[in-house]
Amino acid sequence: MAKIIRVNLNDLSIKTEPVPERYTMLGGRGLTSTIIYNEVNPTTHPLSEGNKLVFAPGVLTGTIAPSSGRLSVGAKSPLTGGIKESNVGGTAARKMANLGIKAIVVEGKAKNNKFILKISSEGFEFLPAEEIWGLGNYLTAEQLQQRFGNKVCILSIGQAGTNQMATATIAATDMEGRPCRHAGRGGLGAVMGSKGLKAIIIDDNQAKETLLDLKDKDGFNTVARDWSKSLVELRKALTAYGTAITVNVTNAIGGLPTRNFSRGNYEGADKINGTALAERIKVNGGKTGHACSPGCVIRCSNIYVEPDGAYVTSGLEYETICLLGSNCEIDDLDAIARFDYLCDDFGLDTMEIGAAIAVAMEGAVLEFGDSAKVDALIREIGNATVLGRILGQGAVVTGRVFNVERVPAVKGQSVASYDPRVFKGTGVSYATTPMGGDHSVGNLLPGRFGVDHTKAEGQVEASRLIQLCSTVQDTMGLCNFTGCDLPSMEIIAQLLSKAKGTEVKSADVMKIGQEILLKELKFNQLAGFTSMDDKLPAFFKTEKLAPTNLVFDVSDEELEKIFNFS
Amino acid sequence: MAKIIRVNLNDLSIKTEPVPERYTMLGGRGLTSTIIYNEVNPTTHPLSEGNKLVFAPGVLTGTIAPSSGRLSVGAKSPLTGGIKESNVGGTAARKMANLGIKAIVVEGKAKNNKFILKISSEGFEFLPAEEIWGLGNYLTAEQLQQRFGNKVCILSIGQAGTNQMATATIAATDMEGRPCRHAGRGGLGAVMGSKGLKAIIIDDNQAKETLLDLKDKDGFNTVARDWSKSLVELRKALTAYGTAITVNVTNAIGGLPTRNFSRGNYEGADKINGTALAERIKVNGGKTGHACSPGCVIRCSNIYVEPDGAYVTSGLEYETICLLGSNCEIDDLDAIARFDYLCDDFGLDTMEIGAAIAVAMEGAVLEFGDSAKVDALIREIGNATVLGRILGQGAVVTGRVFNVERVPAVKGQSVASYDPRVFKGTGVSYATTPMGGDHSVGNLLPGRFGVDHTKAEGQVEASRLIQLCSTVQDTMGLCNFTGCDLPSMEIIAQLLSKAKGTEVKSADVMKIGQEILLKELKFNQLAGFTSMDDKLPAFFKTEKLAPTNLVFDVSDEELEKIFNFS
Repeated sequence: MAKIIRVNLNDLSIKTEPVPERYTMLGGRGLTSTIIYNEVNPTTHPLSEGNKLVFAPGVLTGTIAPSSGRLSVGAKSPLTGGIKESNVGGTAARKMANLGIKAIVVEGKAKNNKFILKISSEGFEFLPAEEIWGLGNYLTAEQLQQRFGNKVCILSIGQAGTNQMATATIAATDMEGRPCRHAGRGGLGAVMGSKGLKAIIIDDNQAKETLLDLKDKDGFNTVARDWSKSLVELRKALTAYGTAITVNVTNAIGGLPTRNFSRGNYEGADKINGTALAERIKVNGGKTGHACSPGCVIRCSNIYVEPDGAYVTSGLEYETICLLGSNCEIDDLDAIARFDYLCDDFGLDTMEIGAAIAVAMEGAVLEFGDSAKVDALIREIGNATVLGRILGQGAVVTGRVFNVERVPAVKGQSVASYDPRVFKGTGVSYATTPMGGDHSVGNLLPGRFGVDHTKAEGQVEASRLIQLCSTVQDTMGLCNFTGCDLPSMEIIAQLLSKAKGTEVKSADVMKIGQEILLKELKFNQLAGFTSMDDKLPAFFKTEKLAPTNLVFDVSDEELEKIFNFS
Repeated sequence: MAKIIRVNLNDLSIKTEPVPERYTMLGGRGLTSTIIYNEVNPTTHPLSEGNKLVFAPGVLTGTIAPSSGRLSVGAKSPLTGGIKESNVGGTAARKMANLGIKAIVVEGKAKNNKFILKISSEGFEFLPAEEIWGLGNYLTAEQLQQRFGNKVCILSIGQAGTNQMATATIAATDMEGRPCRHAGRGGLGAVMGSKGLKAIIIDDNQAKETLLDLKDKDGFNTVARDWSKSLVELRKALTAYGTAITVNVTNAIGGLPTRNFSRGNYEGADKINGTALAERIKVNGGKTGHACSPGCVIRCSNIYVEPDGAYVTSGLEYETICLLGSNCEIDDLDAIARFDYLCDDFGLDTMEIGAAIAVAMEGAVLEFGDSAKVDALIREIGNATVLGRILGQGAVVTGRVFNVERVPAVKGQSVASYDPRVFKGTGVSYATTPMGGDHSVGNLLPGRFGVDHTKAEGQVEASRLIQLCSTVQDTMGLCNFTGCDLPSMEIIAQLLSKAKGTEVKSADVMKIGQEILLKELKFNQLAGFTSMDDKLPAFFKTEKLAPTNLVFDVSDEELEKIFNFS
């Protein structure tokens, strides 16, 4: 029987609850956002005991649906002050599904002591965490694996999380047991740290439960297998080069963030693009085509090693490469890979940190291109020096302290590696999503939905559609690369039809997405957000971006209409 | 002929404009807020060239109306992000009135060079400021007085202003030529710094203009003299002990901010109260009963000296004594006087800095009561070290960086030295004024308007009334101590009647206040403020304040109704 585990750090209670009927078709973001919406006061301080931290595998997690192993983490965000979902690969979601756990809801706040939560088919318990509280994610994982075996999955926070920084992530171990997959955005690691929870150990040894009952299992599996096969074909380039393949695209069309979003192309782009990355990995003996979670058919991850084969980091991705690379005018992949390792170990969002460092560069704290100083600065953040604490609170606070006007952030969160002046649809998503300056909620690459990415026309409609699709995918536990579009919604409807034994239409699926989005928007409204918060920073609208000389010109009036669904 | 001087740092143009008819009954806050409302885009970045900085003497400045020499400074605030007026004593307002200058409007932003603006009856000119750009206010004033004579008034910014910190003030020299009077709140010094303007020299030698035409001069002067006489009687205690006399009141009723607003009384209160201050000044040979501006009949200022008679600071006031004293658990008046000097010299708001330091103390950056560290920390702010830059952005940024939840601020600005759990009407003013957590807009001491200060009942009505009265006073150029109440509105109406030669009723006067408040509220609304911003921090509502165990319990619904004038 699927269940919800509710743990409270105030009194160390652990309760198992049946899944309410109304939650059965929810999972992932749909479930985390619904629980936060239902149970957290929108004006609660994000680091107070009133906030809750929710972990939920997707509706399809545990089935053979392709790349359906993502885990959603939700809370009120200390970075944005709004509702937040951030999802992550690794093995956690699958193991939770194997244990029949629909969600873990973490409540309250430990008074003095620090804790680990251990979850297995034998039960649930708190263990003391004092000895590992100050460790980075890599040592944390290593020590817990030594104690509990290397087959457990570990969700943990590094020093950024224990120091409650608003850029702190929650790490999930991958199939090799490394804590290199991160629920990166929105500072959810700080929420975990505020509660006094260092790690969750998920042991699915002997566990054989499922979350989704399959009425027509064969039918379901046939649809899932066909989808997998087509995705393997469609995503070959991602498998070969990883997400870094996008560097060439964004650079060519002039939307690659360079020098704190002051240019759209970068002279060092060839040194950090997908080809360069794959080549470097091949020469040094690393791995491309690496799956970040069980059942992934796209395998866009990689393992980056030194020339002697020693491990550097895993899952060196496009966003990290650009925000800590081109945006800081650094073209040294080895250096960027080390930054990635450091951020993963301290538990820092590489995107927000990259954006904050570039803002600090513009504020003359360090020079653009100085990779030795960036390395030192990331260590300062991890070690919570005074300077480190500033950047550890993200790009907006960094801009406030160093008086930098050009801060590329929405609702307190930095935008991603697609300049919104060129990727106008993605700009609409940054501006309007309840998640803050986020691309994963609705990234509109050239040609999506037949809209010209450089024109204002049609972007609001395109963003609305992709935001709905992506909300559905995040609810299903599916990776965005399975396709944020109507055909993928159709396949999801087929899968749900086979699972339930009654017809589910793609319109029904879209309706789920809409209901979730509306709850998230309502939460933010009650937290104090207005349409004034649904805007890009002024410089995107006034400063022409070289070399295209485009500005973001989707009107405020259009942005305000995006979620008028009726 | 009264005129408006419009200077633009973009092209160094200086224009003289006649006063538009609709501005004739406006001055001070009424005029600064109207000009900002009419001319500044509410979404402009406060430190960008689109912001304007307006200086305006009051409607009554230059007449013999008592204590009518206050200068209003207005802009969009870098601290609150909303409209701001901060007013100051000293000789500037009177000298501007003598020159017939209704307002100075500073626009644009110097590209590379830095400037001084010199104003006299002979004309207006920009002078280079490079040599004094990095100096504190005291050396700035000294050097400019050596050059331009010691009778000029100097408005200047210290290092906090040139570094564009959101706690930066604008200093005005007093009758002794010392830059010890400050337009303290809202970071207006940063706006001046952002424009590349270091100082304004006002030379009224030979000037004999007036701002307000007196149709019935004798009648006006009779009313003014009677008012002066009654104020001399009524404010004897303020004259004798200064504003520090309030320490005993707030401490006795349990509303004196102590240890970052965690207690309402302070064991060291006897060492920092009005008696202690007057005694210390008397023993050392300083001065009480000192007037901060020409024509002041209340004379609540003082000159604080060392035992050898050497000058320490002037105008050591209640807010400074409490926010840098009891709120930091420091009971050493000499130390607080030195903090005051340092803040005045660097050009820092003693209130915001006191609040920020106490927040840093709660965040374990330094210990409560450590006055040597406070001294060092203020110097770090002035010298713009990394740590100094954090505190230099105010209490909210300090709380963000050091993860302190208990930040006593509204709309980004720290509240004053009246705990709103005990002074509930003042709490309503903090929450609802368009100015941020400000007391000067509507401070409700015990017994005001017959309302029990500890009860929720009647506070919203009392705050509305006093906010209207205080808007009027700030518009007239009157010190708040002339009485923020209906009788003083009646006297103002009489004065305006005599001046205009037609009957002005106190209802007309109140109407002026209402119109100004509504413009300020509208500006903030267009800047993105909502009723969610009209609230006190949660801890004031949930944490009982010892020793009274009161919480702030005026409901949100009541707060929202405060400015429904119709």
